[in-house]
Amino acid sequence: MTGDGDALAQACAERMWTDDLASQRLGMRVLDVGAGRALLAMLVRPDMVNGHGNAHGGFVFAVADSAFAFAFNSRNLRSVAYGCVITYLAPVRTGDELVAAAVERSLVGRTGTYDVTVTVGGTDGRTVVAEFRGTSRTVGGPLLDVG
Amino acid sequence: MTGDGDALAQACAERMWTDDLASQRLGMRVLDVGAGRALLAMLVRPDMVNGHGNAHGGFVFAVADSAFAFAFNSRNLRSVAYGCVITYLAPVRTGDELVAAAVERSLVGRTGTYDVTVTVGGTDGRTVVAEFRGTSRTVGGPLLDVG
Amino acid sequence: MTGDGDALAQACAERMWTDDLASQRLGMRVLDVGAGRALLAMLVRPDMVNGHGNAHGGFVFAVADSAFAFAFNSRNLRSVAYGCVITYLAPVRTGDELVAAAVERSLVGRTGTYDVTVTVGGTDGRTVVAEFRGTSRTVGGPLLDVG
Amino acid sequence: MTGDGDALAQACAERMWTDDLASQRLGMRVLDVGAGRALLAMLVRPDMVNGHGNAHGGFVFAVADSAFAFAFNSRNLRSVAYGCVITYLAPVRTGDELVAAAVERSLVGRTGTYDVTVTVGGTDGRTVVAEFRGTSRTVGGPLLDVG
Repeated sequence: MTGDGDALAQACAERMWTDDLASQRLGMRVLDVGAGRALLAMLVRPDMVNGHGNAHGGFVFAVADSAFAFAFNSRNLRSVAYGCVITYLAPVRTGDELVAAAVERSLVGRTGTYDVTVTVGGTDGRTVVAEFRGTSRTVGGPLLDVG
Repeated sequence: MTGDGDALAQACAERMWTDDLASQRLGMRVLDVGAGRALLAMLVRPDMVNGHGNAHGGFVFAVADSAFAFAFNSRNLRSVAYGCVITYLAPVRTGDELVAAAVERSLVGRTGTYDVTVTVGGTDGRTVVAEFRGTSRTVGGPLLDVG
Repeated sequence: MTGDGDALAQACAERMWTDDLASQRLGMRVLDVGAGRALLAMLVRPDMVNGHGNAHGGFVFAVADSAFAFAFNSRNLRSVAYGCVITYLAPVRTGDELVAAAVERSLVGRTGTYDVTVTVGGTDGRTVVAEFRGTSRTVGGPLLDVG
Repeated sequence: MTGDGDALAQACAERMWTDDLASQRLGMRVLDVGAGRALLAMLVRPDMVNGHGNAHGGFVFAVADSAFAFAFNSRNLRSVAYGCVITYLAPVRTGDELVAAAVERSLVGRTGTYDVTVTVGGTDGRTVVAEFRGTSRTVGGPLLDVG
């Protein structure tokens, strides 16, 4: 599905990416964006591991949270995250490539609800490692000036 | 309040910290730990900022998540995070010092519930920037061999 | 989509319904069930209204929770709810017919994640009044004896 | 702790209770209210049981949600529930008396965060059956006209 909404979403994503040092330094890559959706990837580095030898939950959260942000800012309405809930379903290890797929579930008034599924790849398909749900609020004004 | 439980909690924290490259590289500091509680701090660095000039939610989450982990591992029962919910209450900027205070709300069977309040300091006291609740599950075995 | 999984889901639903006095007394109706999904309806009665003249959140939650239960028990694996999160998006009034549509987002090991969207109807289409996410855990054994 | 804030909270609670048919019909009782807190009880009736012989989660949620509502309306600021998360920690049976204790965790701008612990009594003390966290938003105006 590609349309004007998707072109606008890509312009919004380019603008966000330029300023988003955090996602850049974490090594994230934006694989795809569209109206109400985003797909990001991030490699789990050795410095992202916690005391049990697994990826620190904060990094699994971070890639989900960035996908959520690219999705909720995809409609050129300046918005902020309000709350998030994450459930961890499987451990993540150094060298795993996390892929976070965000989709809009609803956008009612100023409140958006987005679901992000985080997976890692394997020889026999992808495994879901976390399910994330985020709530956003539109704070007014556009992200981009579009003529 | 200091007791045997707190001494054990400190031993658990030292063991976790040694392996927890993620929290170390993020610049976290463990200010205090005890039985069922932990207090951590983290300075928001320029590389933690997102596209709106605020701290990326993933880093606010990360310090809360680490405080949660130190709290739920404080009783020498090997445990993992199961799910978390975070609500963002105020923006966080570069240079802010985040302090995350985790306390145990309940520990029933294998399931623990922990609340973490994240604050930043100011000239007129501390401001709550996020409220976090985490659920942990004990997975069996001790974290430390204690004689 | 109808298949053996859906026939099993319907048998599970019939068994659950017989014992589920709570959902019966609340006036719920099971509109559809299938493998990993369920669709329920409930009329908001005058005795379900709270101090602001809106439906008490507990009843909006209840219909979502029942749809979640029918969905997570649809595979003949005895399961229980572990945790739920609900976001209220619009007020609900006496006389509104709530419809709760539950779908399985993932089923990994013993943990299932289900999303439920609750809507009310109007002259110009349906309005989302709440988004619910539930986590279930399989506790062992079948719900039904099936030859 | 009793003070002017608590007297106002009691006046708010009396006003809410009069209109709150839902909580009345569910057999709830308000045991105590104060500034930012509320304590409610509810007996689990036979018509509140679901297909597994346990209390339907919606009723455990409902008593937590009502305690949350009495707490967030205790300051005479008209407010609504925005979102809630509940974790079920132990099953609840017919005849159990649920007690829901709500406390304010933070009130920042228009957003309040409240924790509710739901317990049942036994011969050897109380057991936590659910932990609930709710987020409220102030919508403007007082609940009561106070001179």
